[in-house]
Formats: sequence, structure tokens, C-alpha cells
Amino acid sequence: MSAMKIAVIGGGSWATAIVKMLSENLKEIGWYMRNTFVKEHILHQGHNPNYLSAVEFKPEQLRLTNDINEAVLYADIIIFAVPSAFLHSELEKLTVSLKDKIIFSAIKGIVPETGLIVGEHFHKEYGMPLENIGVITGPCHAEEVALERLSYLTIACADPKKAKILAKSLAGDYIKTKISDDIIGTEYAAVLKNIYAIAAGIAHGLGYGDNFQSVLMSNAIREMRRFIKRVHRMKRNINNSAYLGDLLVTGYSVFSRNRMFGNMIGKGYTVKSAMMEMSMVAEGYYAAKSAHIINEKHDKKIKTPIMDAVYNVLYEAKDPKKVFRKLSEKLD
Amino acid sequence: MSAMKIAVIGGGSWATAIVKMLSENLKEIGWYMRNTFVKEHILHQGHNPNYLSAVEFKPEQLRLTNDINEAVLYADIIIFAVPSAFLHSELEKLTVSLKDKIIFSAIKGIVPETGLIVGEHFHKEYGMPLENIGVITGPCHAEEVALERLSYLTIACADPKKAKILAKSLAGDYIKTKISDDIIGTEYAAVLKNIYAIAAGIAHGLGYGDNFQSVLMSNAIREMRRFIKRVHRMKRNINNSAYLGDLLVTGYSVFSRNRMFGNMIGKGYTVKSAMMEMSMVAEGYYAAKSAHIINEKHDKKIKTPIMDAVYNVLYEAKDPKKVFRKLSEKLD
Repeated sequence: MSAMKIAVIGGGSWATAIVKMLSENLKEIGWYMRNTFVKEHILHQGHNPNYLSAVEFKPEQLRLTNDINEAVLYADIIIFAVPSAFLHSELEKLTVSLKDKIIFSAIKGIVPETGLIVGEHFHKEYGMPLENIGVITGPCHAEEVALERLSYLTIACADPKKAKILAKSLAGDYIKTKISDDIIGTEYAAVLKNIYAIAAGIAHGLGYGDNFQSVLMSNAIREMRRFIKRVHRMKRNINNSAYLGDLLVTGYSVFSRNRMFGNMIGKGYTVKSAMMEMSMVAEGYYAAKSAHIINEKHDKKIKTPIMDAVYNVLYEAKDPKKVFRKLSEKLD
Repeated sequence: MSAMKIAVIGGGSWATAIVKMLSENLKEIGWYMRNTFVKEHILHQGHNPNYLSAVEFKPEQLRLTNDINEAVLYADIIIFAVPSAFLHSELEKLTVSLKDKIIFSAIKGIVPETGLIVGEHFHKEYGMPLENIGVITGPCHAEEVALERLSYLTIACADPKKAKILAKSLAGDYIKTKISDDIIGTEYAAVLKNIYAIAAGIAHGLGYGDNFQSVLMSNAIREMRRFIKRVHRMKRNINNSAYLGDLLVTGYSVFSRNRMFGNMIGKGYTVKSAMMEMSMVAEGYYAAKSAHIINEKHDKKIKTPIMDAVYNVLYEAKDPKKVFRKLSEKLD
């Protein structure tokens, strides 16, 4: 199994960081990206012109392609690292089968077309067995991988053997890996944390300080625990890096797109103008809606005041100031 | 019981913030500080010249004194808010009895002379019954109280009636309070978080990034849980604000003295020179030693890799770089 071929799907910063990690361990990596110019640039210049451009690649180590089918055919393990909003349209290009392939999602978001997390999307829409689906999760900013700053990844898969193979291919001097069997929980954590990062941004934009932020994060991890427990009940320590660590690295990062998006809204931008200003949609925007829908489905509601507040601001056009004043009464 | 008189012991920033909160609710507050000049300044100018100087007081509302006995005689509830290193010498000045008094500790540290947390110090050294001892804990930077930014306090006492009285006296537009019966656990959390803030500072000083910090904090809260559970076993949610929130507000604050102290050590200062440069000792310095001693006492050791690392750097003169490289192998 150790001679398994791996391909990465995506040309963004996280995809680029993952290829960098793999390139320390593997002789060859398949790498698909949509953009032909970027592909040609990497092939001739040895770096991605748009993301983490300081990272140098050996082009002879890369099987670059603009055809997703070529990458899927090439690999045994396929790592998806495109924004969740593009996953559906990328998969529509597939003419080859995913049967017998192992899929790992490095996407931290909900597929807007189905409202599902990526693992569930592959399972339900493509009939992939759960033991062939996995998740790569942080806490890990791609930018720090580029700088080779020590980072920790959790690789989750129902089949621990598959998690171990990928963990070994990613680990190195500056990357430590851990395996987990909680594919649903780790993926939901990676999705929900973006909602909380938006909340942290809104609070900051409204003028709340560090004392409030710490209370917000302390409530957020408890809310996340309740939510994930209801969606997928199993024994997990919510304070492990894949859950709490991932929440913190995003919620406290001033570089997080989700936090930035929230901050603009807290400062008075409308949702539309904040999106236009940022030129891309923050993952947490979709996540807030999906989490709301999941919550609505259940008869017996759990308390999710923070995600409710974010939903009300983003989708019900409620005044952030009033919503957060109300929210502050519910936190403790 | 609601007409209880309250006095604050201390002239620093946290004491000043507490007097500010009380002054929104009480007609009169006793306030002891050692420094006569500061007392006279507050009396005549209405603000503390050294700390939170933008906060205005009505001097007629304050019973200012330089005599700790006068403050103790005056009050039914006495809030101690001096640095832990000065508590012992302040208490030595007492000629009046603490019998029938209710004590709340707003001190986040270990009493160096006894190696005890403040509640235990009063219990063991002064024979005070546990139901007359309480703790005021954050997450709460005094500076943000001065700015009237929304903050949350936890007031812990074995006797919930006493906790409620103080909680009511502190709560207001920008202060929300919660009560707890975990005096030992909340106080240990407030003490241990300073050790973790030193660890966060050392890591930052050594060049570790945000990804590592989040893993460090995720491990720190698990370590804190194990430690407190061993010291005082009871049902508690370690992710409540008084534990996790307090850890985060300190660990992520660039203004935290403990983090700053650690940062200097990470950057190559010796412990001595970092202390001299800061002109005061960070609370976590003593806490690291006491926590180590407590750990040593037990036959069956729990794993405390982070506090061990800080102890080794501060007290065993070990190289921070090597110690943290080793530590990084133990985190996950």
C-alpha cells in the first residue's frame, strides 16, 4: 500500500501547501489545477505565481495537469483542496470513475449545491463507501507551511490504515501528524469554526475587546461540541487540536478571510458589499446557512446562540449591533 | 446581607478596575493601598495616577486608607487584589482579626512564602472556613474594564449566597457575572494560565507561529484539566469562561506580562535579565515552581509536558530552544 500514488486537486494556497508537504516525501505527485497559465508557470518557473509564491517546487517531481480526469486516473489517493463552492462544478467534469479511489477532503466548507460537508457529499452523491473517505484538518495556515513553521495536522479516516498512509506522506521536519477515526466530527469542526471566526470578526468590528473574544471562543467550543455531538455521536475530546486548535487558529487570526468578512460587517458594510470588497465568498457564509438548516431539521433544538446570531446577521439582514447585544446576554 | 460593606486591598490596575465596577453599584467602598502619595492623589484628583488613570472616581464615595487594619475593620467583604508576592507582607501588618470576615481573592498567583493558592493560604494559615473564602476570576483585562468594554467575571464561593452578593455588587452595563462553587478549580486555573502564557511567549520568542500556538493552547487546556482534576476532583466544564476563557485572554494577549516575560526568554534573555528588564516578576514565574512541587508530591504522575518545559527553562537553566523542540514532540 505504501507505493500509493497521490494527486492533489486545486491550485490555491492550501493545495499548494499540501503539495509542498508531499514533495518532501514522495517521488512524484499528481497535481491538477484549472488554470493553464498557473500550470505552465509552475512547470517552467517552479513556483505557483498566485499563492505561496516563495515555495519552490521541482517540476520534474510533479505530474501537473489541467484535466481533472488525468489526475484522478493517475492516483490511488485524491486530495481535494478546492474551495467548497467550486467542488460541484469540478466534479461535473469527471468522466472517469471514483470507484476504488480513496478521497481525502482538505476542504473546510459545505458544498453549497447539496448543503453537505464534503465527506457526506462524496458518500451520498457518488456512492463512495465511508472507509474510502477521509479528512485532512489543521490547525494549519498554509502561509506557515510555506515558512516551514512547525504545524500539526489531523488525518481522519474510518479506516486507520488509510489515514496512516496519508499521515506518513505528509509528515516531516515541520509537519506533525495524528490520525483519528472521527471523519464527520473533524470535518464539521473545520466547517463550524469559520462561522465562529465570522462571529469573532463581527464582534471586533463592533468594538468588543479581548475579554469578550475569549468568552466568545469559550462559548463557541461548547456550542461546537453540542452541535457535533448531535450530528454524530461518538467519543471525542473536543479540546483536541483538530477541534479547539482549529477554532483558535482561525478565530484569533487577523488573516482569516472569515474573520475579515465578519469584521467588515461589524464595521457597517452590508453583506453584499463586504463580499464584493473581498472578491471571494468566505466559507463561513455558506456554513452559517447549512448549519442553520441542520438545526432546523431537529425537533429538539440544542442551544446554538452564536451560529444563530451569525445567521441572523448574514441571512436575515438583522442589525449586527442589536444581534450581538442580545447574544452577549446568552454567553457566560 | 445586602447592605454588606466591601473593601478592596491594593492599588494596582486590577484593584483599581474592581473599585470602578463596585463604584457603579455601591454608595461607599473601602479602599486600602500602601502608597500614601497615590491615596492623596485619588482623594484630591479623583484618579489613580499609576494605573488606569483615565478612570474617574468620586472621592466622596471612597473610604481611602493607608492602614490595612482600617479597611479590614470597615468591611464585611474584603477583596484582595495585590500581587501574590506582596500578600504575605501585607497580611503581617494585620492586628485586627479576619474572623467573621468574608474574603475574596482577586489575586492570580501563588503565595511564594507558602506555595499555596490564595484561598488555601487563608484557609490553612489563618484558619478561615472555606465557606467564607471566594475567588473573583476573569477572563478580564483591567484595561478593558477601564474602557467599559463588555467583560465577564466568575465569582466563586462554596457558599452561593456570598458569591451572589458580590456578583451583584460587581455586575453592570459592561460587566456580566456568573457564580460558581469551584473555588479551588477556578483559582488554580487563574494561576496555571500564567504558566501557559509564559510558554506561549517563549514559543513566540523562539519563532514558532500561530499554528503552533493554537496546538499549544489546545494541549494547555487538556493539561490544565488533568492538573486541576487531580488537585480537586469535582464536576466542572473546563471550557467555561473561568478556565478556558481565562487561558485564552492571557495566552493570546500581547499585553500579558507573563507572555512578555516568556517572549524575552525565547528571544535569548536570561531569566534574571528578563526580570530586571520588566522591573517586576511575572506571576507565572512563582506558579511554575509551585505547580512543579505539587506535581512532584504525587506518586502517580499525570502528564504535564508544558508546565514541565516552563519549569525546566525557568528553574533548571535549560536551553529554551531544546526544551521546546522536545515539548513539540509531546504535543498533538
